[in-house]
Amino acid sequence: MPIALLIRNEDAKPKDYSHIADRFRPSHADFTYHAKYGLRDYRGGGRSSARETAARVAAGAVAKMVLKKHGVKITAWVSRVGDVVLEKAWQDLDFSQIEATPVRCPDLSVAEQMEALIREVRKEGDTIGGIVGCVIENCPVGLGEPVFDRLHADLGKAMLSINACKGFEYGSGFAGVSMRGSQHNDAFFNFKDKILTRTNHSGGIQGGISNGMAIDFRVAFKPVATIVSSQESVNEAGESVQVVGRGRHDPCVLPRAVPIVEAMAALVIVDHLLRNNTVHVQNLTQ
Amino acid sequence: MPIALLIRNEDAKPKDYSHIADRFRPSHADFTYHAKYGLRDYRGGGRSSARETAARVAAGAVAKMVLKKHGVKITAWVSRVGDVVLEKAWQDLDFSQIEATPVRCPDLSVAEQMEALIREVRKEGDTIGGIVGCVIENCPVGLGEPVFDRLHADLGKAMLSINACKGFEYGSGFAGVSMRGSQHNDAFFNFKDKILTRTNHSGGIQGGISNGMAIDFRVAFKPVATIVSSQESVNEAGESVQVVGRGRHDPCVLPRAVPIVEAMAALVIVDHLLRNNTVHVQNLTQ
Amino acid sequence: MPIALLIRNEDAKPKDYSHIADRFRPSHADFTYHAKYGLRDYRGGGRSSARETAARVAAGAVAKMVLKKHGVKITAWVSRVGDVVLEKAWQDLDFSQIEATPVRCPDLSVAEQMEALIREVRKEGDTIGGIVGCVIENCPVGLGEPVFDRLHADLGKAMLSINACKGFEYGSGFAGVSMRGSQHNDAFFNFKDKILTRTNHSGGIQGGISNGMAIDFRVAFKPVATIVSSQESVNEAGESVQVVGRGRHDPCVLPRAVPIVEAMAALVIVDHLLRNNTVHVQNLTQ
Amino acid sequence: MPIALLIRNEDAKPKDYSHIADRFRPSHADFTYHAKYGLRDYRGGGRSSARETAARVAAGAVAKMVLKKHGVKITAWVSRVGDVVLEKAWQDLDFSQIEATPVRCPDLSVAEQMEALIREVRKEGDTIGGIVGCVIENCPVGLGEPVFDRLHADLGKAMLSINACKGFEYGSGFAGVSMRGSQHNDAFFNFKDKILTRTNHSGGIQGGISNGMAIDFRVAFKPVATIVSSQESVNEAGESVQVVGRGRHDPCVLPRAVPIVEAMAALVIVDHLLRNNTVHVQNLTQ
Repeated sequence: MPIALLIRNEDAKPKDYSHIADRFRPSHADFTYHAKYGLRDYRGGGRSSARETAARVAAGAVAKMVLKKHGVKITAWVSRVGDVVLEKAWQDLDFSQIEATPVRCPDLSVAEQMEALIREVRKEGDTIGGIVGCVIENCPVGLGEPVFDRLHADLGKAMLSINACKGFEYGSGFAGVSMRGSQHNDAFFNFKDKILTRTNHSGGIQGGISNGMAIDFRVAFKPVATIVSSQESVNEAGESVQVVGRGRHDPCVLPRAVPIVEAMAALVIVDHLLRNNTVHVQNLTQ
Repeated sequence: MPIALLIRNEDAKPKDYSHIADRFRPSHADFTYHAKYGLRDYRGGGRSSARETAARVAAGAVAKMVLKKHGVKITAWVSRVGDVVLEKAWQDLDFSQIEATPVRCPDLSVAEQMEALIREVRKEGDTIGGIVGCVIENCPVGLGEPVFDRLHADLGKAMLSINACKGFEYGSGFAGVSMRGSQHNDAFFNFKDKILTRTNHSGGIQGGISNGMAIDFRVAFKPVATIVSSQESVNEAGESVQVVGRGRHDPCVLPRAVPIVEAMAALVIVDHLLRNNTVHVQNLTQ
Repeated sequence: MPIALLIRNEDAKPKDYSHIADRFRPSHADFTYHAKYGLRDYRGGGRSSARETAARVAAGAVAKMVLKKHGVKITAWVSRVGDVVLEKAWQDLDFSQIEATPVRCPDLSVAEQMEALIREVRKEGDTIGGIVGCVIENCPVGLGEPVFDRLHADLGKAMLSINACKGFEYGSGFAGVSMRGSQHNDAFFNFKDKILTRTNHSGGIQGGISNGMAIDFRVAFKPVATIVSSQESVNEAGESVQVVGRGRHDPCVLPRAVPIVEAMAALVIVDHLLRNNTVHVQNLTQ
Repeated sequence: MPIALLIRNEDAKPKDYSHIADRFRPSHADFTYHAKYGLRDYRGGGRSSARETAARVAAGAVAKMVLKKHGVKITAWVSRVGDVVLEKAWQDLDFSQIEATPVRCPDLSVAEQMEALIREVRKEGDTIGGIVGCVIENCPVGLGEPVFDRLHADLGKAMLSINACKGFEYGSGFAGVSMRGSQHNDAFFNFKDKILTRTNHSGGIQGGISNGMAIDFRVAFKPVATIVSSQESVNEAGESVQVVGRGRHDPCVLPRAVPIVEAMAALVIVDHLLRNNTVHVQNLTQ
């Protein structure tokens, strides 16, 4: 049977937004929604609010139940806040520590620096961006489609659809552009009748299809747009106005983005698991 | 009427691949296709070959004809090869020089360095990666959908679906994570009855919907997997073998990726133009 | 903003079905759901229950609000119950009388006969089928797509997806097969600068696209499967069993099918109105 | 690998249509295409021509290869031309005789009457409609989806998308509306560990999902619109004109519709076979 999930939007304070009822907050969706639809929900953004991602996390929890049956494990964590960077490879992280701090960085000393930075940014009434890392372990070989629906293309779209996301890279990513092919190529070898690769610059995906190695990727998030200080903007009439931040806002969304990244990854992998089943009939015809 | 485009795959040399008929080239799609479908076209890869992108460029040419009517202009160029980087902002580039060199970098002195590097890499029988930059000018306000089909999510998926792509970022991208919200936010102002922004860290897209400013993004490509030197691998029986490169191969795909990036961007924008028209009926009901 | 509709399934009596927990009711979805999913909701059928159509009627009410803005009017009625047939053309019916009787047939003397028949069938613990007629007036010219998504193909699929539906015909329908082309063809003429047809055997659709004339169609519904008398069947173990009807059941679904047919028609027309808007960009390129 | 099929439209005589370049043939797609797109291919109709169905038959041939591996057999035949009706049940027909006559009716004496009628209609410069019957034998249990994509809804849409189709019914169809539930219900019984039904008014589909019994349906086709005699119409300027038939035309499309009906049925069944595979993952979670 289909599964219905109902989340009531109860913890809302619509009156907190009356001061921006007629004006566009910079780098929010206010202006573009107004231009596209002729109306918008100024009381927090409506569909453009990151509250919408609660539904993704709920659906992702169901997807994770399916993945558990397949032994697939998805883990995300905060790997950077501003210029505080977690330099370790994911294999060297202790994932059991992710939930140990509110910042969701598994290296506790880096987590401490991140927290300090976020506290400082909050004091300034400002915000800061960062990067979420994610790894999908034990993904079956063969997920992903040739041409358009490559596994990493669908993962990338899913991540880029999360609020405030500005970039996606997998495997060697942007850093890989400096490498030579002879360094970047992942040599195959046979380990107990399983084909593995010595390195994993491919990020677990070759030709758009999972090869059984860990799928690792990184997602960049910009600093939250809502800040305390007064900002230049225009109102619906096109007149110059000032916008001042009010309401409840995060100085940094990174820790909250972690479960969203996991949920979206889980949904993409389950979709491709289902889709992969359709290959069987084709094989029957050979 | 629908448009049919037929490209015959004539300039092929299937015999050049007989030495890899039974073995998997590292970091190619050989292994994953074999695992998924139980068969693969070892004579160049079939669907996994970048030859498939010829169809994208042809379709993109039609999309560009539609975009021309709307005044939309899409321009891509090579902005990095290995560690040779074009540091200038796109506004400072002379796009008329993109086709002046085979490397498709509009800054001729940087282009020269890129060519030198590619020549060196070829001599070594090796390959190198890089980055393609792209800007969409004069995109109408209002393209893109809330939630999943945000304009940058569809652009990202389109780029990640191009062979050898490892990452996508738009606007401030990965660099934006170090910025404070007060620096990153793009202030609105009214210029001759058009709402513009003072800066464009948003990359022309806010809340997933185009805001009329230039849409700029960058696409990372890994070094080509086919190299001349001998590499460790396995064959279909799972036995250790060596794979040696033969056939015709590029030391660097970046210059060839430029028209593909433009074509995919054109297809995404036209799709969203068509989709945007469906908003009108909803407005009628208000 | 998207519209959420929530209908709680409150008026249910799950215990009424305990006698069929392990056995398949003849001509119900019990067996096929069990075979496909390995489980089923025997307490009324779950998704296979016609209760599901409440959601269609609710969504159709929204679609009708959109259609009202376009002047489109959709009317359905019961045109046949068993062998009691409403012979009049739809143009000769008084639609204001449809809701005058519970049987939803606008001709009151035929409605009386239908009611009598249904009462008789109920007394026998049996059920009876029938036909719903429907007409879409003032549909804009140009709705429908060439090849697969012809307007009547989408209308047909929508109607056939309603529980108990066994057939769909539009315009001249099955009766038209006896006609000669010279009788069947609808001559065009110009009436006050509008192109109309003298007859309407085409049922308002030519080449899959609406021509502005009334779209009329008929939908056949089988007798409800739940009857009072004992029936031969098998249980989940494949053993011979008897199934006896209990719970609340209709002797005839036809009157209840009327708003469902209208709702599904409204949804199809609104979908095609939205889809038709995408033609505009193509026109711009000419 | 994907399969490409190329049919060149070579046996065309575009000049045969110059007399209707500016006017709309009654009951053709000329007027609706012109109204929707602002242009049309008057030289035979372009996409609105039944020539388009050649692609369906070619694709259906591939689908039949897949179905053969599953033991599914699809057979269509002409069951009615005008008022000449093949009254026998499909079980009593000798399918080996379908191709014995050009009219594709397996009962040779009825075929003779059909041919005589078609010859007479052709002499009069007129056309005639009819019905194609079709049966899908040995369809696996479990194909079809709840709610909208019921197997018979998709079959119905596929048939209604064929040129000149006016109606679709399956199982008891329109005739079933006169039956009582107690007559119409198909009792289950166990035959050698297979669950079968004593009768098959359900037409092999219950609750939208195949039950393993034969799926039988009927498709109504109107008389071809192109006739020899002069007909009243209008031209693009909206002026009264006469349209006279010329070019090559069939007095009756029924025999040609037989392979198209089979092809569309094969495509629908293969689509649902593939789709059915996606159920497996859901079962794993139980």
